[in-house]
Amino acid sequence: MTDDVLPDLAGPIEVVGAGLIGTSVGLVCRRLGLDVILRDTSAENLRTAHGLGAGRAPLPGDRPQLVVVAVPPVAIADAIVDALGRTDAVVTDVGSVKAAPLAAVAARASAVDLRRYVGSHPMAGSERSGPLAASAALFDGRPWAVTPHEGADPRAVGLVEALVLECGASPRVMSPAEHDRAVARISHLPHLAAVLVAGRLVTAPEEHLALSGQGVRDVTRVAASDPALWRQILEANSTAVLDLLAEVRSDLDELMSAVAADTGADLVEILARGNAGTQAIPGKHGGPARPTRSVFVSVPDHPGELARLFGDAGEIGVNIEDVRIDHDPGRPVGLTELVVDRSSAEHLLAALESRGWTTHR
Amino acid sequence: MTDDVLPDLAGPIEVVGAGLIGTSVGLVCRRLGLDVILRDTSAENLRTAHGLGAGRAPLPGDRPQLVVVAVPPVAIADAIVDALGRTDAVVTDVGSVKAAPLAAVAARASAVDLRRYVGSHPMAGSERSGPLAASAALFDGRPWAVTPHEGADPRAVGLVEALVLECGASPRVMSPAEHDRAVARISHLPHLAAVLVAGRLVTAPEEHLALSGQGVRDVTRVAASDPALWRQILEANSTAVLDLLAEVRSDLDELMSAVAADTGADLVEILARGNAGTQAIPGKHGGPARPTRSVFVSVPDHPGELARLFGDAGEIGVNIEDVRIDHDPGRPVGLTELVVDRSSAEHLLAALESRGWTTHR
Repeated sequence: MTDDVLPDLAGPIEVVGAGLIGTSVGLVCRRLGLDVILRDTSAENLRTAHGLGAGRAPLPGDRPQLVVVAVPPVAIADAIVDALGRTDAVVTDVGSVKAAPLAAVAARASAVDLRRYVGSHPMAGSERSGPLAASAALFDGRPWAVTPHEGADPRAVGLVEALVLECGASPRVMSPAEHDRAVARISHLPHLAAVLVAGRLVTAPEEHLALSGQGVRDVTRVAASDPALWRQILEANSTAVLDLLAEVRSDLDELMSAVAADTGADLVEILARGNAGTQAIPGKHGGPARPTRSVFVSVPDHPGELARLFGDAGEIGVNIEDVRIDHDPGRPVGLTELVVDRSSAEHLLAALESRGWTTHR
Repeated sequence: MTDDVLPDLAGPIEVVGAGLIGTSVGLVCRRLGLDVILRDTSAENLRTAHGLGAGRAPLPGDRPQLVVVAVPPVAIADAIVDALGRTDAVVTDVGSVKAAPLAAVAARASAVDLRRYVGSHPMAGSERSGPLAASAALFDGRPWAVTPHEGADPRAVGLVEALVLECGASPRVMSPAEHDRAVARISHLPHLAAVLVAGRLVTAPEEHLALSGQGVRDVTRVAASDPALWRQILEANSTAVLDLLAEVRSDLDELMSAVAADTGADLVEILARGNAGTQAIPGKHGGPARPTRSVFVSVPDHPGELARLFGDAGEIGVNIEDVRIDHDPGRPVGLTELVVDRSSAEHLLAALESRGWTTHR
C-alpha cells in the first residue's frame, strides 16, 4: 500500500509483552500521543515499562485498534490467538521467525479472525533485553519485515506498515516463508558461524589468544547473545537454518579440498566469492554500498582523545560512516579507523595531519 | 630476554620489501634516528617509500645490523636465504606463517648462518597494502609474535624483540609451529568463516539482503581482503588450517544434529560455548576482558553530529572502549553504540540525556 492510502494509526495500541521491543513500541506510540495499553505476566516488567512512560494498565471497555505481541518465541502463538479472540483489533507480532507461529495460529483461529493477523519483525536490538533497554529510537533507520499470510486483510497489512513507519523503520513486505529464509541467511547463519569460531577459542592456549586482532573480534562478536533465546529462534526456524547449514557444509568441504590441493585456483575463487559477498550487503541508505575508504589515526587510550579526534573531524566536515577502535592487548595506544566516503578520504587525512594527528591510509 | 639485557637496536636496519609492513618499519626506525636501507624489486615502491622518508638506497660498504624481510609470502624464503648469505646481520621476516618458510630456509642455509635467522610476525594491517598505507603508528599496541627456531642465537632473538618494542608493539615469543597453530585459530579460521558466510550472500535475493543488520556486517567484514594474498597465506599454513577446519566440520555436524533434534539441551550447550569463547578474547590491556556495557545513542546521519556526541562524551570524562555505528538501509538516523567500562555506563547515560541526546541501554 502506498503512503497516501495507509490507514491512520490512531490507537489505542495494546502491547503484550513489556520487554525490549514491546516497551520501545510503547515509547514510540506514547511520543505520538497515542493511548498505549501494556500487558505482561511479570509485574516487575509492567512496573518498569509504566515508569518509563511506555503505557498504562488495561481498563474495562478498552478497544485497541492494534495489538502488538512482543513475548518470547515459545509464547507467541498463544498470545496471538488470545488477542484475536479477546479483541477485534489488527494483531501483529514481532517474533524473529514467522512461518511456524503462523501455522500454529492458523490451526487454532477461525479464518475470519485470521484475516486480522499480520506478522512482522523489526530488525533491531539483538543483544539487549528487558524494558530498561527500551528506547523510542530503537527502530530508527532499521528494516522491519511485514509478513502477511495470503488471507490477510489489506487494511490490516496497511495498519502494520503504518506502525512501522511511525517507528522510524523501513517496512519490507514479504511472505512468512521468504522471511524465514532471509533471516536464516542474513542473521541465523552469521550467528552460528560466530558461535562455531568462538567455540574454538574456549580451550585455546593463552598464547594463541594473545595474538587476537580485530578480525576474530568482529567475527565472534554476535556469539555473545543469550543462548536460551537463540535456541528458541533456531528451533522455530530449523528447516531454513538446516537447509543453509547443509549448503555451508558443502562449501566447507569444497574449501578444505581447495586448501589441500596443489593448485590455488579453486581457493582463489572461493576467497573472491567471499569478497563479492561483502559487496552485496546494502549500504547506509538502502542502495548499493557506496565506495568507502578507511583512514587510520593513532589515538592514545584515555578520555578526551577520541572526542578531540571527532571534534576535529566534525570541523573538517567529513561524514563518518563507521568507526572501529582497535583494542588489542598491549600498550595503551590504539588505532582508530574512520570509514568515510572514498572521495573525502584524502581531504580528511591531510586536515587531520595538519592538526597534529598521526594518520595513515 | 628482559628489557635490561636486550641488545641495542643501533642500525643500520635493512628493509627488504617496501610494502605496508616494510615501509612502516622503516618509518619507525627513521623516526628513532636509525639509518634505514630500502630494497624492493619495484622501482615505484622504492620511490614512494623514499619519498615518505622511510629510508635510503643501498650503498657499497653497507653493513646492516638487522635485515627485515617484508616481501610477499612466495618470495620470503628466497629473500631470507639471500640476506643471510649477503650480510652478517640478524635476519627476521614478517610473514604471517612461520614453519614452512623456516623449513625452506633451513634446507638451504648453513647451520651457522641459520643461527642469525629469527622469524617474526606483527599482528597489524591486514586489509591495506603498499607503501602509501604505511605509518610509524601501524604497530602501536599490537601483538607481534617472535618465533625463533631451536638453534637461533639468543642475541639475535633479543635484537628482534628490541625492534618489536621500538615499534610500539608487544613481543610474544613462541615456536614457529605454535605460532602457525595460533594464527590458524585466531586469524585464518575467522577469515574463512567470514568467507563462507559472505559466499552465501552473493546469489541472495535482494529482499533477503535488505534485512541485513550489524551482525552479518561484523561477521563478514574481514572477507573483504585480497584473495591472492590470502591464498598464499592459507597454502603456507595448510596443515594447521585443515586441522582446525576438520574440527569445525565436526562441530558443524554436531550443530546440525542439535538444531534438528527435539530436545534443546545440546543446542543451548553449543550456543553457550560460543558465549564463553567471546569472553576468552583478551581485553584492551592484555588482561581478561574488563566487563563493559553498551550505551546506545540516536545520531542523525550528517557531519558534526558524531563530533558533538564525542565532544560531550569527552567532557563527561568517560573513556570509550569501542564504537559501532549502525548503518542499515533505511532512513538517515542511526544508532551509535558506545562501549564503556560497566561502572561508567549509567553516569554516561544520564549525562548524555541531560545534554539532549536520545539514549537507551
